[in-house]
Amino acid sequence: MYAVASVNIIKVTLDSLVEKPDLVVVEEPLEIRLGYGSMDNRQQQNVSVTMRTPTHDFELALGFLYSEGFISSYNQILSIKYCVDAGKQAIDNIVRVELKPEVKFNPKSLKRNFYATSSCGVCGKASIEAIDDMICKLPKQRLEANAFKVSRDYVVNLPKSLAHHQKVFKYTGGLHAAALFDEAGNIISLREDIGRHNALDKLIGNALMQDLLPLNNKVLLLSSRASFELIQKAVMANISIIITIGAPSSLSIQTAEKFGITLVGFLKNDRFNIYTVKERISC
Amino acid sequence: MYAVASVNIIKVTLDSLVEKPDLVVVEEPLEIRLGYGSMDNRQQQNVSVTMRTPTHDFELALGFLYSEGFISSYNQILSIKYCVDAGKQAIDNIVRVELKPEVKFNPKSLKRNFYATSSCGVCGKASIEAIDDMICKLPKQRLEANAFKVSRDYVVNLPKSLAHHQKVFKYTGGLHAAALFDEAGNIISLREDIGRHNALDKLIGNALMQDLLPLNNKVLLLSSRASFELIQKAVMANISIIITIGAPSSLSIQTAEKFGITLVGFLKNDRFNIYTVKERISC
Repeated sequence: MYAVASVNIIKVTLDSLVEKPDLVVVEEPLEIRLGYGSMDNRQQQNVSVTMRTPTHDFELALGFLYSEGFISSYNQILSIKYCVDAGKQAIDNIVRVELKPEVKFNPKSLKRNFYATSSCGVCGKASIEAIDDMICKLPKQRLEANAFKVSRDYVVNLPKSLAHHQKVFKYTGGLHAAALFDEAGNIISLREDIGRHNALDKLIGNALMQDLLPLNNKVLLLSSRASFELIQKAVMANISIIITIGAPSSLSIQTAEKFGITLVGFLKNDRFNIYTVKERISC
Repeated sequence: MYAVASVNIIKVTLDSLVEKPDLVVVEEPLEIRLGYGSMDNRQQQNVSVTMRTPTHDFELALGFLYSEGFISSYNQILSIKYCVDAGKQAIDNIVRVELKPEVKFNPKSLKRNFYATSSCGVCGKASIEAIDDMICKLPKQRLEANAFKVSRDYVVNLPKSLAHHQKVFKYTGGLHAAALFDEAGNIISLREDIGRHNALDKLIGNALMQDLLPLNNKVLLLSSRASFELIQKAVMANISIIITIGAPSSLSIQTAEKFGITLVGFLKNDRFNIYTVKERISC
């Protein structure tokens, strides 16, 4: 279980293009189960699944349970361990917390205060496969690997457009942006939100209302990092090129690779990194 | 409904201290309801509550439903509107999406693919009040407003410690950090994660295991922006000073104010902004 993973990237600058290994931060789901008997599933309740960077998982589980009001002291815990279902891959992604018998916990109380965010499965592989299930519901054609291309100049010019249009960020410094560009590099729409996933949902919602879907000949620019959830949403909208100002996670790279999406990260001035499907960027 | 709000802040630099109005990004919860009849609550199902920045809410709802696989075209929608329960404050924070009768949607399918994140209520006020409920469960004393203070120099020196210790970020550029400092400015613990809330949960979980709670004479430094969820977790751990490198949201400021927490944002080199309870920073 590591917090970083090695991937092969293509570092693009104004006058060079180098393939080299690089480190990215690991993103994997963690399920937290809470209950009274570590061996009996019926007494264990799933209280949370969150995308996290592995390491310090027990602290994460305890801190979550404390800061969400489930426990009030470390003394209330009888045991905390990883799920040990032999033969399953997800072992490191499920933490089981066993309460002492005298500590009250009502699983039914969960639904009132906790609510939904998107994601599926309890390992990266299951998360990616869950997207396949969602795609099956959609009436769309899959994209050919090389159907849509842009140039190095196209990519490095995008941030100027973004900065020019990002109004709320200009005043508050506190927002993420998602922007859609056409083949010529003109901005089609830009949405801002305190949540990265919300900015992208707004953008996709707008495209849906404008009947622009599927977006397979558009470029998505994100002011944030690339995480699994953002790639998942882009897959659903059939976006084939995603460019982020920030860093990509391990799972975002795996997901982009699986669905034939070109993922570019660390776009800054005249340089950027290509993580997947490099053929769509002509350098 | 606005994306920005005006607040009074104290701008602190090496040689000045100016009180002035400033703009912050608005953070408010949005509940998305999906079903078949906008007037009949029994046919409407809550599919998501997310903290978002108001404006473009219908796009957000549609983009969410599309990118999560609930709908596959705009044609499937009969109507989309805000909840219109007269006299309630939360009107702008609930969007009701009505499907055409022929579109299939099984509310029971929700629980499998969607899972929990923390937050409560469907307006900022309800969200803040929900913290009170959680605090009641905890055996701790509330903090006096001026019990713990730090100096301007203390604050501006924190980022150096953070950068020195933030190992994974150094290699990947893709992580958020949460760090705890003692009264002398020494770092007690630092945790990194792709999720801001996870980094803080790990830190609080560690403090819980080390029996360091309550943390009312410690300082929390966050590499990220300040959002409601992070302040909520800090309240639970009784942290009285929170310093962020990024911007604070409207709701994070309101929550910090309500619980007597000093909130500092935009810490950079020798300058920072104080948003709430300025008495704890001696300048």
